[in-house]
Amino acid sequence: MSESCTLGSPPESMDHASQLPRMTVEAFNRLLDESAPFQKIYGFVTEEIGYGSARVRLPASEAHTRPGGTLSGPAQMALADFAMYAALLGTIGEVPLAVTTSLNINFLQRPQPGDLLATCRLLKLGKRLAVGDITVQSEGLATPVAHATATYSIPPRG
Amino acid sequence: MSESCTLGSPPESMDHASQLPRMTVEAFNRLLDESAPFQKIYGFVTEEIGYGSARVRLPASEAHTRPGGTLSGPAQMALADFAMYAALLGTIGEVPLAVTTSLNINFLQRPQPGDLLATCRLLKLGKRLAVGDITVQSEGLATPVAHATATYSIPPRG
Amino acid sequence: MSESCTLGSPPESMDHASQLPRMTVEAFNRLLDESAPFQKIYGFVTEEIGYGSARVRLPASEAHTRPGGTLSGPAQMALADFAMYAALLGTIGEVPLAVTTSLNINFLQRPQPGDLLATCRLLKLGKRLAVGDITVQSEGLATPVAHATATYSIPPRG
Amino acid sequence: MSESCTLGSPPESMDHASQLPRMTVEAFNRLLDESAPFQKIYGFVTEEIGYGSARVRLPASEAHTRPGGTLSGPAQMALADFAMYAALLGTIGEVPLAVTTSLNINFLQRPQPGDLLATCRLLKLGKRLAVGDITVQSEGLATPVAHATATYSIPPRG
Repeated sequence: MSESCTLGSPPESMDHASQLPRMTVEAFNRLLDESAPFQKIYGFVTEEIGYGSARVRLPASEAHTRPGGTLSGPAQMALADFAMYAALLGTIGEVPLAVTTSLNINFLQRPQPGDLLATCRLLKLGKRLAVGDITVQSEGLATPVAHATATYSIPPRG
Repeated sequence: MSESCTLGSPPESMDHASQLPRMTVEAFNRLLDESAPFQKIYGFVTEEIGYGSARVRLPASEAHTRPGGTLSGPAQMALADFAMYAALLGTIGEVPLAVTTSLNINFLQRPQPGDLLATCRLLKLGKRLAVGDITVQSEGLATPVAHATATYSIPPRG
Repeated sequence: MSESCTLGSPPESMDHASQLPRMTVEAFNRLLDESAPFQKIYGFVTEEIGYGSARVRLPASEAHTRPGGTLSGPAQMALADFAMYAALLGTIGEVPLAVTTSLNINFLQRPQPGDLLATCRLLKLGKRLAVGDITVQSEGLATPVAHATATYSIPPRG
Repeated sequence: MSESCTLGSPPESMDHASQLPRMTVEAFNRLLDESAPFQKIYGFVTEEIGYGSARVRLPASEAHTRPGGTLSGPAQMALADFAMYAALLGTIGEVPLAVTTSLNINFLQRPQPGDLLATCRLLKLGKRLAVGDITVQSEGLATPVAHATATYSIPPRG
């Protein structure tokens, strides 16, 4: 992989749009069971993994809602981070030691009661760092609830 | 409160260092029970609330640890956000509708197994926005595990 | 303007996509001459202002380039901030006291020698805060050079 | 240098507080003359470089001030980035290819007319990434004008 295989924006300009994902949703779920059991407290459902992208659902649940039934800020941060992890592994395959180095999130409006969906697309895939852009939306609504960017560190590969 | 009652850095330069906190730990805990029950999934323990500062503990628990016993990134983000909320209410009193508008976090090193402590100090307290700086540390170690800044929106007060 | 007139993403979902910009490029340039003469050190050229969006060019110039002819990081940060200001004024009209409250930028790859273009779209327009997303690209190339998010504070309007 | 030689916070807890800086102000200025002549548009004055820290002055100048004589946001961002570069080179010595990968800044209050001072301390020094915390102040005043965190990528060293 080249030093700075930067991925395009918007998606249609991605050089590798025709590439297949390097990890299936099934393999991703198996990896999580083994290496990240704590993710289960959120109940994330990975709906789609592509090369350079992912879409993940955070089901509404009493444990993570504020009064009024809307999902909390910390739950949205966890969701954004998780969607980035899915998109990254869809691009580089099973690299369990990839870890978040930074995350920036802007909360834009109170979510609607109900599930949240996070869509991540990678903005950059370097040898050592990947950067992604995550939009969080209430299901069925176009206006975003939150917008995040995250950076992952990729361990050296043999 | 003036338009931009900016709080000093380092703490010893705070104009209001001699002011008393506007909320006790006990009143803060009561408020959370009523308005933010979802916080319980983390089991945060608010150890100290000052005027412009707070210290919160995230107890190690299986639900939030990665293999190896270290607390996860999402748990650290939730902790940073929570410590900021405590510091803000220690400064403006009970304003339950204060909400996070943005959070930026850098993960600096893998935590040690065990509890984490977050220390927040407010950098700015304006009429509409408050900004704080949060350092997350493994108990007993000086080197930080994570560093965050967060912004809260303060609702208009009568 | 409603409390949280959140603008859509992607642009085609904007509720107000059919609205006209509230400021022309000509009026924007006049405002800058009067209120922000320091912007001239960068030589920004505002190419387009829409309702909720803007496109600004940073011409290559010796003053802002690194050896090799590529535009510096600080010049890219100034460009991102400026594009957000143009997009905001295209949405709320002439409000000279709108000021940046925060900016987050990820540098994705070294730019090509030559001009840079920044495209901003507003993600949120509230009564007190606006949040935008800015992509910086080398002219003619789809892959982004930098990606930023910025928040502006909007003064109370009569 | 170890994989994660994390630097302490507050400064007095730095494991290496007794270490000497790896670069003098004079050598730093010579390096800039050769490799970053564009920095001269700001007129930064590097006042102090330590191991893990630096202090840099941005002199008030008509080119970078808003009406009222206060230094602009883009000038403050450039200052924060520059102070981080000085602190990094004080810690790892002359590594000209170290580049900013991300920067996050919160503007806290309008500066006073006059010079600005930025103080950087490194929060983390890894093999591949360094993270620093920068406080910007109006000369003589304790309350901060802006607060930033920045990440630099460090090229592999032989």
